[in-house]
Amino acid sequence: MSLDTNTEWYSEIHDPNGAAFSLRVKAKLHEEKTPFQTIAIYDTEGFGRLMTIDGLVMLTDRDNFIYHEMMSHPVLFTHPNPKRVLVIGGGDCGTLREVLRHPGVEVAHQVEIDERVTRLAEEYFPLLCESNGDPRAELLFEDGIRWVKEAEAGYYDVIIIDSTDPVGPAEGLFGEAFYHDAIRALGTHGLLVQQSESPLYHMHLLTDIHKALRRSGFADVQSLHFPQPVYPSGWWSCTMACKDAAFSGFREQAARERPFATRYYNADLHRGATALPTYMQEAFAALKG
Amino acid sequence: MSLDTNTEWYSEIHDPNGAAFSLRVKAKLHEEKTPFQTIAIYDTEGFGRLMTIDGLVMLTDRDNFIYHEMMSHPVLFTHPNPKRVLVIGGGDCGTLREVLRHPGVEVAHQVEIDERVTRLAEEYFPLLCESNGDPRAELLFEDGIRWVKEAEAGYYDVIIIDSTDPVGPAEGLFGEAFYHDAIRALGTHGLLVQQSESPLYHMHLLTDIHKALRRSGFADVQSLHFPQPVYPSGWWSCTMACKDAAFSGFREQAARERPFATRYYNADLHRGATALPTYMQEAFAALKG
Repeated sequence: MSLDTNTEWYSEIHDPNGAAFSLRVKAKLHEEKTPFQTIAIYDTEGFGRLMTIDGLVMLTDRDNFIYHEMMSHPVLFTHPNPKRVLVIGGGDCGTLREVLRHPGVEVAHQVEIDERVTRLAEEYFPLLCESNGDPRAELLFEDGIRWVKEAEAGYYDVIIIDSTDPVGPAEGLFGEAFYHDAIRALGTHGLLVQQSESPLYHMHLLTDIHKALRRSGFADVQSLHFPQPVYPSGWWSCTMACKDAAFSGFREQAARERPFATRYYNADLHRGATALPTYMQEAFAALKG
Repeated sequence: MSLDTNTEWYSEIHDPNGAAFSLRVKAKLHEEKTPFQTIAIYDTEGFGRLMTIDGLVMLTDRDNFIYHEMMSHPVLFTHPNPKRVLVIGGGDCGTLREVLRHPGVEVAHQVEIDERVTRLAEEYFPLLCESNGDPRAELLFEDGIRWVKEAEAGYYDVIIIDSTDPVGPAEGLFGEAFYHDAIRALGTHGLLVQQSESPLYHMHLLTDIHKALRRSGFADVQSLHFPQPVYPSGWWSCTMACKDAAFSGFREQAARERPFATRYYNADLHRGATALPTYMQEAFAALKG
């Protein structure tokens, strides 16, 4: 069967795996070339609005809740008392919105290199940006790598790296030099979490991230997995690292009694997301050798 | 971006959601029309061999392990002592292979309506069929609905419904009349498990399955979720039902000490797969009203 040609499709080809994901498009609403990348917004038939960067799916209205909830709530319920949170990337503001649901958070800095991502999210994904006016939030349009390098030592409790794939502007966010700076910027019990691609397609990258985080001095590293239908393979992961201690569960009671609604996240699901497939367990165990 | 036209793609369009998944094809190895359906086999660039039925992806070499392990091991480690297992559908024999890994299983009947599915699996997916000669296995090519209706009362410990989507020949496997017959064919503590489609695309079907299973007399119903990259949305589910008791965990110790290797399944992951997203919990809770 081929894609019908009497309607328009947006397709993302994942070349190394000979696979593609397509969404039927009602209209292209916007396209622009920024100093960093090309951003496009589409209206799709079944997924609401779609934002792409350099031809790759960033998010859709329909399923972004899974990713945004999993990039924020597990790490925030793992830290004992997160007050100062840094989001690197995340220009669509969906992760920031979830972070701000936590009443204990006092400061949330979002450092996105490309202001146009946020301005377009404000226009085309207003729900994701509904907390941008929160007095605890500060939207900064800077290079996240430099921001972390220059951050006050020990300032942040949690750093969330909500970036694009590790090519182009985001590449430096997946390396030891950056992780060293992140450790310095984190306080006691500080945690980092990073989107870490597909468990089916990118195990090599996942093990590289684990290795680099450990070599940089993080005391423990743990990946979580979750569905993300519009990303390559429909299956995604994030990887948490703890500055100074081994992971030993999370604040389950607080997660159960969270004073805000979620659509994907809950305490049992949090624990479930840390239960990795056997082949992933084996790959990570082999690193510790 | 469009699919390049200088290579051949196999595409499955999921029309109600305006989405499509495509695999780049090196060659079509086989195609035939049986009395029931059209079966095709492709060699793909990144997923090994692919079998489709009536244009829909059934399985690929690369990721079928997730589905087959999740259709077999959770239900078999939930039943206290499964000896007699019935697989309905499952003509590729991958679920049967996993069932036969359990040393306690004494009888495994596979009832597939279309013998050609199995004959083509033997030819093109030989690994999945490697246990077909096991003396405990019996391959029957019959209508699964009639088979269950005519089965000896109380004979089976576990019934696994490894069918295609609930249209065409499989439609009758998703209804109360069939579930009634299944209850009769199940012994004390008997369990049924059924593939139950995508949590993103098919929540209506999932709640319908829950309702029908309960109305038919099953004492408890529980869904599990797992990634399945080649199925629509890349996210899939199965639904278990217990004939006469509420679910209360599974044989965790036995799952930990299982005398066989798995690539996806393990005891922690089993529990994780039962931890449902909040929106699914809410949809199922509303049914109990």
